[in-house]
Amino acid sequence: MSAATAPQKLAAEGLGTAFLLAAIVGSGIMAERLAGENMALALLANTLPTSAMLVVLITMLTPISGAHLNPAVSLVFFLRRDIGSRDAMAYVAAQVVGALFGVLIAHGMFEQPLMQVSAKPRSGFAQAFSECVATFGLVTTILLTLRAKPQAVAMSVGLYITAAYWFTASTSFANPAVTIARTMTDTFTGIRPDAAAGFVAAQLAGAIGALVVAQALTPRSMTTHKPENAHAE
Amino acid sequence: MSAATAPQKLAAEGLGTAFLLAAIVGSGIMAERLAGENMALALLANTLPTSAMLVVLITMLTPISGAHLNPAVSLVFFLRRDIGSRDAMAYVAAQVVGALFGVLIAHGMFEQPLMQVSAKPRSGFAQAFSECVATFGLVTTILLTLRAKPQAVAMSVGLYITAAYWFTASTSFANPAVTIARTMTDTFTGIRPDAAAGFVAAQLAGAIGALVVAQALTPRSMTTHKPENAHAE
Amino acid sequence: MSAATAPQKLAAEGLGTAFLLAAIVGSGIMAERLAGENMALALLANTLPTSAMLVVLITMLTPISGAHLNPAVSLVFFLRRDIGSRDAMAYVAAQVVGALFGVLIAHGMFEQPLMQVSAKPRSGFAQAFSECVATFGLVTTILLTLRAKPQAVAMSVGLYITAAYWFTASTSFANPAVTIARTMTDTFTGIRPDAAAGFVAAQLAGAIGALVVAQALTPRSMTTHKPENAHAE
Amino acid sequence: MSAATAPQKLAAEGLGTAFLLAAIVGSGIMAERLAGENMALALLANTLPTSAMLVVLITMLTPISGAHLNPAVSLVFFLRRDIGSRDAMAYVAAQVVGALFGVLIAHGMFEQPLMQVSAKPRSGFAQAFSECVATFGLVTTILLTLRAKPQAVAMSVGLYITAAYWFTASTSFANPAVTIARTMTDTFTGIRPDAAAGFVAAQLAGAIGALVVAQALTPRSMTTHKPENAHAE
Repeated sequence: MSAATAPQKLAAEGLGTAFLLAAIVGSGIMAERLAGENMALALLANTLPTSAMLVVLITMLTPISGAHLNPAVSLVFFLRRDIGSRDAMAYVAAQVVGALFGVLIAHGMFEQPLMQVSAKPRSGFAQAFSECVATFGLVTTILLTLRAKPQAVAMSVGLYITAAYWFTASTSFANPAVTIARTMTDTFTGIRPDAAAGFVAAQLAGAIGALVVAQALTPRSMTTHKPENAHAE
Repeated sequence: MSAATAPQKLAAEGLGTAFLLAAIVGSGIMAERLAGENMALALLANTLPTSAMLVVLITMLTPISGAHLNPAVSLVFFLRRDIGSRDAMAYVAAQVVGALFGVLIAHGMFEQPLMQVSAKPRSGFAQAFSECVATFGLVTTILLTLRAKPQAVAMSVGLYITAAYWFTASTSFANPAVTIARTMTDTFTGIRPDAAAGFVAAQLAGAIGALVVAQALTPRSMTTHKPENAHAE
Repeated sequence: MSAATAPQKLAAEGLGTAFLLAAIVGSGIMAERLAGENMALALLANTLPTSAMLVVLITMLTPISGAHLNPAVSLVFFLRRDIGSRDAMAYVAAQVVGALFGVLIAHGMFEQPLMQVSAKPRSGFAQAFSECVATFGLVTTILLTLRAKPQAVAMSVGLYITAAYWFTASTSFANPAVTIARTMTDTFTGIRPDAAAGFVAAQLAGAIGALVVAQALTPRSMTTHKPENAHAE
Repeated sequence: MSAATAPQKLAAEGLGTAFLLAAIVGSGIMAERLAGENMALALLANTLPTSAMLVVLITMLTPISGAHLNPAVSLVFFLRRDIGSRDAMAYVAAQVVGALFGVLIAHGMFEQPLMQVSAKPRSGFAQAFSECVATFGLVTTILLTLRAKPQAVAMSVGLYITAAYWFTASTSFANPAVTIARTMTDTFTGIRPDAAAGFVAAQLAGAIGALVVAQALTPRSMTTHKPENAHAE
């Protein structure tokens, strides 16, 4: 249970998600600009900043807000009754607003038009299946690492996303707020708005699947103490 | 000794090995697709996700199953009498089934035919010697790190594999379940079935050599407490 | 409160900043030399050594001087009243002298003329905005991580800079001493002297903004113990 | 003080240095083979395995032998009176023999002639100065990190070498045993025998300089407990 006030928690979620999106979108622009036609190098130069930023943000924001930074994660903590429905909805709102703001920051830094709409198609079964697997893996990582070694959650999430950018066909958005915000940039990391709903649905399905699997894998004898990054008012 | 039930342990080994293979095979497909003809970049983009995933999986699964994820490791823990023969065999079965399943997941995400057979030859003395060295190093790392700093095993295994992908001529499979599963993909990370038996034999020889060397290097005065990721019924 | 004497503290700040600049400028020279025209690869080969060196330096120098290594950080600790004005000014002087010395070392190692003046233009709104964002993020990372997990500050700063080299348009100097010293090298990492003042002003603005935000995000109930890398006479 | 016997300590030093050289030379061969003419990519693919292996080896061997793996480090611990002269000489012998053995292993894995002599010139002031700086930094890192955070030495050494491969003109051998062994391979990481003496002299000078500086920077009030990786008979 955090000592932070509700506005502090929401500000932390918003600030964190803004930095996450600035890192994703900004490094994507820089990567594509510098890598020219070498797409492997561009994706590598997009992977490392994203993962590194996740570790930084989760480490520093966990004591304030739990550092969900992801509506799929807030949904799972709501389903586990770690947070209430009103809190969960406020978190999701803060995450989406922060994410959109982060895209604007990235555009501002790279002298891009602030408001954009992505034209990059990312649809079809393989993309949706990838997002489902990606989010299943992300939420499994969070839930099992919270039980196994809570202080390793930040590093594990960063490393998981390092892997997931490459082993999924969709480069692992794995986050509805990230998905929505990335419809607003017509750069390397964009996604066409009409593909976003499918992504989000697949992500939520993966997250719920992970909750079921993680609970099935948890020994009953494990102490059911509240993990440090869960919180209720 | 873990509080997990036997089915939970086997599920953890299967789930973990599935994610490991999805990461290896999936990132190999993505890497080859994006890197074009630059094989150094492709191997780098295969190395980082594999290593990152290993750290994540070992961190989160150690309290449940010990996170062997590798029949050569289960063999060594059986020879050390940390697990019984029946457990060891069940672990190996779960690892192989999980690994095959992980290959299917990767194929599904990348719209590949689900069932494939690799045509990539990987045989000869240098390849077998490489696998023996790779697995010797991996098992030495696990055994000595378990004694020196148990909480560092996950990170050390990830870093060891980062090195071994590059310093061995075979790119360090170092895992019989991984080897068997990789015969079933005709992509970047595949291996022709007729080469698999030689790989597995070399891996087991390396693992047993590591067990001998690690015990010779262990001071007698060291407390012989059961390490946290060993377990017996 | 460190047990080090004032000269030891200043020597630590100077030595650390010298190694930081040697790493930045030296790896920039090596990267450009080897990467030829692939600027993404050159920046990657500049990012990893810079970040790695930051983690090393902050880890080893924190108990001596607090490992500020950055006038913007010393300014913030002065504004927080963690150090006095005289100490802060001495720190800044040591940092700038160390930084200039580090550039000379890099030039010496690479057989470059020791004294150079950069001709690389880096100006305009996007560059200044980038530096403001970069330093805001750096100082926020330091202040919130000091409260959340002090032993993670070194790693978080390294990871933050890994991200910031790529997600800002200016490659994140985020440090006035670094900025001044980089005017003295006409290599990959240089900056034309006439652009330095704008960079420094933007950095200081970002740092002060971070101080305000970090305090607004800090729960009142958090113990206000002096963090380990703050110090007063 | 380690509980290991003298033969165990020497075997650990030999085994560790063998794996270190196998990683350096083996990854150099693989990197050059795959990277073709892109030398930045080749050096990156040589950097990561070397650094990763160092972290693994130091973590697992520190409780046995102190994990010097480097005659310059053993010299410094001898000068600090952490080990006796006879021990130091035995350590150096084990390191050199292990290093030569590691080169043979790498050649065997890559189907190279086992015995080779390097034809790669690496001489001149810039190279010697680079080695002096590289080893000064390495030994400073070890000594100050031992005092600041002993459990971080392995990670810091790995990160330091990541940086030093790039910020020095010589790619930072920083180790006399590594230097001698690398005269025996005519591959990416080789060095012509006539350049080795200059490298070793520069390395020892850098190491002694680091000892002086580290002691000047150490607060007197710091407890002078024997660090965990020092040992005496």
